[in-house]
Amino acid sequence: MNANAWLPAWLRSYRREWLSGDISAGLIVSVVLIPQSLAYALLAGLPPQAGLYASVLPLLAYALFGSSMALAVGPVAVVSLMTAAAIAPMAAVGSAEYAALAILLALLSGAMLFAAGLLRLGFLAYFLSRPVINGFIAGSALLITFGQLKYLLGIALPNGTAIEIVRALPAALPHTNVTTANIGLLALVYLVFARTAMPRVLLAMGIPKQLVFLKTRLAIMTVVVIATVWSALAGIDAGANVAVVGVVPSGLPALRLPAIDWQQVWALCLPASLISLVGFVESMSVAQSLALKRGERVDPDRELLGIGVANVASALSGGFPVTGGFARSIINFDAGARTPVASMISAIVMAIVIAGLTGWLRYLPLSVLAATIIVAVLALVDLKAFSNAWRYDKADAVSMLLTFAGVLVLGVEQGILTGVALSLTALVWRSSHPHMAVVGRVPGTEHFRNVDRHQVQIRPGLIALRVDESLYFANAQVLEDRIVSLIREQPNTRCVLLIMSAVNQLDTTALDMLTELDQSLAARGIALQFAEVKGPVLDRLRTTPLGRRMHGRIFLSTHQAFVAFDASDQPAETS
Amino acid sequence: MNANAWLPAWLRSYRREWLSGDISAGLIVSVVLIPQSLAYALLAGLPPQAGLYASVLPLLAYALFGSSMALAVGPVAVVSLMTAAAIAPMAAVGSAEYAALAILLALLSGAMLFAAGLLRLGFLAYFLSRPVINGFIAGSALLITFGQLKYLLGIALPNGTAIEIVRALPAALPHTNVTTANIGLLALVYLVFARTAMPRVLLAMGIPKQLVFLKTRLAIMTVVVIATVWSALAGIDAGANVAVVGVVPSGLPALRLPAIDWQQVWALCLPASLISLVGFVESMSVAQSLALKRGERVDPDRELLGIGVANVASALSGGFPVTGGFARSIINFDAGARTPVASMISAIVMAIVIAGLTGWLRYLPLSVLAATIIVAVLALVDLKAFSNAWRYDKADAVSMLLTFAGVLVLGVEQGILTGVALSLTALVWRSSHPHMAVVGRVPGTEHFRNVDRHQVQIRPGLIALRVDESLYFANAQVLEDRIVSLIREQPNTRCVLLIMSAVNQLDTTALDMLTELDQSLAARGIALQFAEVKGPVLDRLRTTPLGRRMHGRIFLSTHQAFVAFDASDQPAETS
Repeated sequence: MNANAWLPAWLRSYRREWLSGDISAGLIVSVVLIPQSLAYALLAGLPPQAGLYASVLPLLAYALFGSSMALAVGPVAVVSLMTAAAIAPMAAVGSAEYAALAILLALLSGAMLFAAGLLRLGFLAYFLSRPVINGFIAGSALLITFGQLKYLLGIALPNGTAIEIVRALPAALPHTNVTTANIGLLALVYLVFARTAMPRVLLAMGIPKQLVFLKTRLAIMTVVVIATVWSALAGIDAGANVAVVGVVPSGLPALRLPAIDWQQVWALCLPASLISLVGFVESMSVAQSLALKRGERVDPDRELLGIGVANVASALSGGFPVTGGFARSIINFDAGARTPVASMISAIVMAIVIAGLTGWLRYLPLSVLAATIIVAVLALVDLKAFSNAWRYDKADAVSMLLTFAGVLVLGVEQGILTGVALSLTALVWRSSHPHMAVVGRVPGTEHFRNVDRHQVQIRPGLIALRVDESLYFANAQVLEDRIVSLIREQPNTRCVLLIMSAVNQLDTTALDMLTELDQSLAARGIALQFAEVKGPVLDRLRTTPLGRRMHGRIFLSTHQAFVAFDASDQPAETS
Repeated sequence: MNANAWLPAWLRSYRREWLSGDISAGLIVSVVLIPQSLAYALLAGLPPQAGLYASVLPLLAYALFGSSMALAVGPVAVVSLMTAAAIAPMAAVGSAEYAALAILLALLSGAMLFAAGLLRLGFLAYFLSRPVINGFIAGSALLITFGQLKYLLGIALPNGTAIEIVRALPAALPHTNVTTANIGLLALVYLVFARTAMPRVLLAMGIPKQLVFLKTRLAIMTVVVIATVWSALAGIDAGANVAVVGVVPSGLPALRLPAIDWQQVWALCLPASLISLVGFVESMSVAQSLALKRGERVDPDRELLGIGVANVASALSGGFPVTGGFARSIINFDAGARTPVASMISAIVMAIVIAGLTGWLRYLPLSVLAATIIVAVLALVDLKAFSNAWRYDKADAVSMLLTFAGVLVLGVEQGILTGVALSLTALVWRSSHPHMAVVGRVPGTEHFRNVDRHQVQIRPGLIALRVDESLYFANAQVLEDRIVSLIREQPNTRCVLLIMSAVNQLDTTALDMLTELDQSLAARGIALQFAEVKGPVLDRLRTTPLGRRMHGRIFLSTHQAFVAFDASDQPAETS
């Protein structure tokens, strides 16, 4: 066996021409990541260094274990919000216990994701519908925005639901710290300008497209540098009482396993699983949409392992829960990342910053960080998705709205639980409404079609029902119910023929149902018959008591079943 | 409008010849219900009268609102166990608060069921697979049996998981109250005999079948009467320190709304929803299997209303959560019940007992009640279901075992949560593994078949993929993934044709996926095409941006799509 076989495929077949793209993407991402890692630590209620720590090892871990070529892992807004929501009821913000709980949460969530990857549960990424995800993200974005107002304006506001914050706003606004608010709002306006009008303005000025892209992406760093330098020179933290980041300890964190208190673990189980779910779904959706653009594949099970290991790495190095970030991954992709080498470059840059450059961050006003958060999360809100859903499918639009409202009114955890409940209910509803059709013969042919849509011949006394889906626990009872209803409508029924051409599987529940149905129909003088049973289904059916009893009542084709019915019919009518 | 239109259909068209069956069934059920209502109150940790109260109004309420003709509503074993599990952590058994919490639990559960009925959530009955239900019932039966040992033998055992009880057993057994144990074990042996050998013995003695049936069903009453009379005459409660039912207050309960403490309501929300789920599923499964025997229909939504109102009625009259009982409903059916009049007769008999005959119950030994409970619940265990599932479908057998173990090791609430999680995971797994097939042309025809199973012609550069299920959030991404994989295997692909003959619906998530797919394939020079799109799906698709962009790429038949591909192919190859 080749010694390289343990290396990821992209590393074994790395091409030299990819390197420049990977390097420039890695650099650009780290320029975005420095302020964002501080901002999301703030959002999670953690000291700034936690954000920096969460931006080194997790990136390397994902690079080695994940399957996406362009995913940029690290702290992200929604997961940071959920981290704060999970820990705030258990410890005071700023306390050592709070930071320890965040580490434990990352470890738990990482272990859950990793275990889910080993169990090949990647398919769970798909059970949240996109409207629910969009509603959740929009609600979270608004909730985050409300939550950042206290930093943006330098006022005192409660941590809580959006409604609680809005209620407290009128009383708090008069106490706005004018310098803080001016800095924050200025940053906000510039960042919005950079995202919206600036590209067009720069292009109109004849600046090359590549440079425009760079300048737009670097807007966040521009704001941070200007604000920090000005704040340091003016000494506004002392003078105007503007809240700043403060001393960020330099030096890489020591690796160590967090202390494990099983009572805390138990209390964090639900939040950790919700964070895992949301983090995984966010990560998968951006990874898949980027992979699609280059015809690459993302493997959900490997993604679980990758994000799982990244979270464990974050816990070991004093960070908090991380995942693949939406906007940052797109920046990474657009800046030319071809492989996870880009993320490794980002990790190295972040390590250098931590090792020696944290002194510069000290004077950065929190209101500027708040502005970067607000701009980042509001960009995630997809209003068009709502209007599209409203036009195309009202039920989808309603579940989007309910999830959105759930986040704002009940909070982020209850919001995602609302979304999970809506998605699962939709799934059960769908699964328990199988498509089936009563069919008749197209005159003069051996074809059989839906009696509601075609002019077909039916046989009185024979109900021929085509089942268009596999039969299993969620729909077995519904099929039985349909058959009972049909017999009640046609009391002279002597034969019920199930056409199983689309039944690829038949589970224990469906088998039980068919067994009971056969017995009760037989007791009422009605024969149950099958036609067009697929080979694998038939092989298994034959080993069961039902299969043995059905001998002679399973027909190769619907046509043959009709012929047999006619034959059994003739003698009775002619005699 | 007819003044009778508000009455249930069975009452409007009641036939005189049904009456004798209804009366005898009502009487036989009440003979079973008197001891069982006391026993299940004991199981729920409540005073005996709570069981009696729960056996009057709920029966009348269900008769008016439910849809099953033969369902016998009242206290049942599993729901009583769950009631005890829910309340025991919140109040001391025997306290007034405990009884008040049971009433509140019934009210909450009733309100949830009723609301679910109004929202037409009856389909939720189907999402628990039968293996999960069987595993849950078997585990609960064993847990109940272990829990009754303390009454059966007159020893002190902890309330807790099966494991905790088994552990405490060796230390407790030497303190067995010999008289109590003798009475209990004697009753147990007789009841087992009555269920198993007695019918055969009586039939062999030439006794008519109808009478044998009656004698078997009345065994429980025989035991109770003999034990009570003997206990009263011997005065064993004082003499041998045998625990007896004790004074049961006579007189019907005053109707009143329970006091509502919102903190308690919040704490009872999860247990109430689990009780609602289990009660509804148990009730539906027996109601449906009985309805099937007579070709009647049970409406899940009306069942929700019926069971919901029954629980509210139980709360108003000082009872506890009730549902349709499995064994009792079968007795009702077998004894000739044709309509809910049978249940009304039972309710009247129970009311008479409460009004004046409770004095007789005082001396009934608890060990006899424990024996009736043990025999009733062990009869619910279906060992054959497990061996059948093991032979037919290992995954189903494993989920049965896991749910069973969950109940025994973790307790009844965690057990049903395990079952719910297993069922939902199975549902998501199934839904996210849609059936699809790459197809090719059967030579010389316009038919297209799976390339893996048939000798068919394919076109290099064209991938024709038949989707065998509706596309929606749970499987949309999987389809995209499959297409990406196929293109990676065939890099010269110029056209991807989706054959949508089985797609009855296309939700927002699937539409978004197809829109993105179309864009990214177009960017790589690959054309996405559809064929055999059903009318309703096409109509809605046409209103979307994707539908407009796909103009000219949607073909009526797969054949036409192949012809168009060949035509576009020819010039390039001949030129």
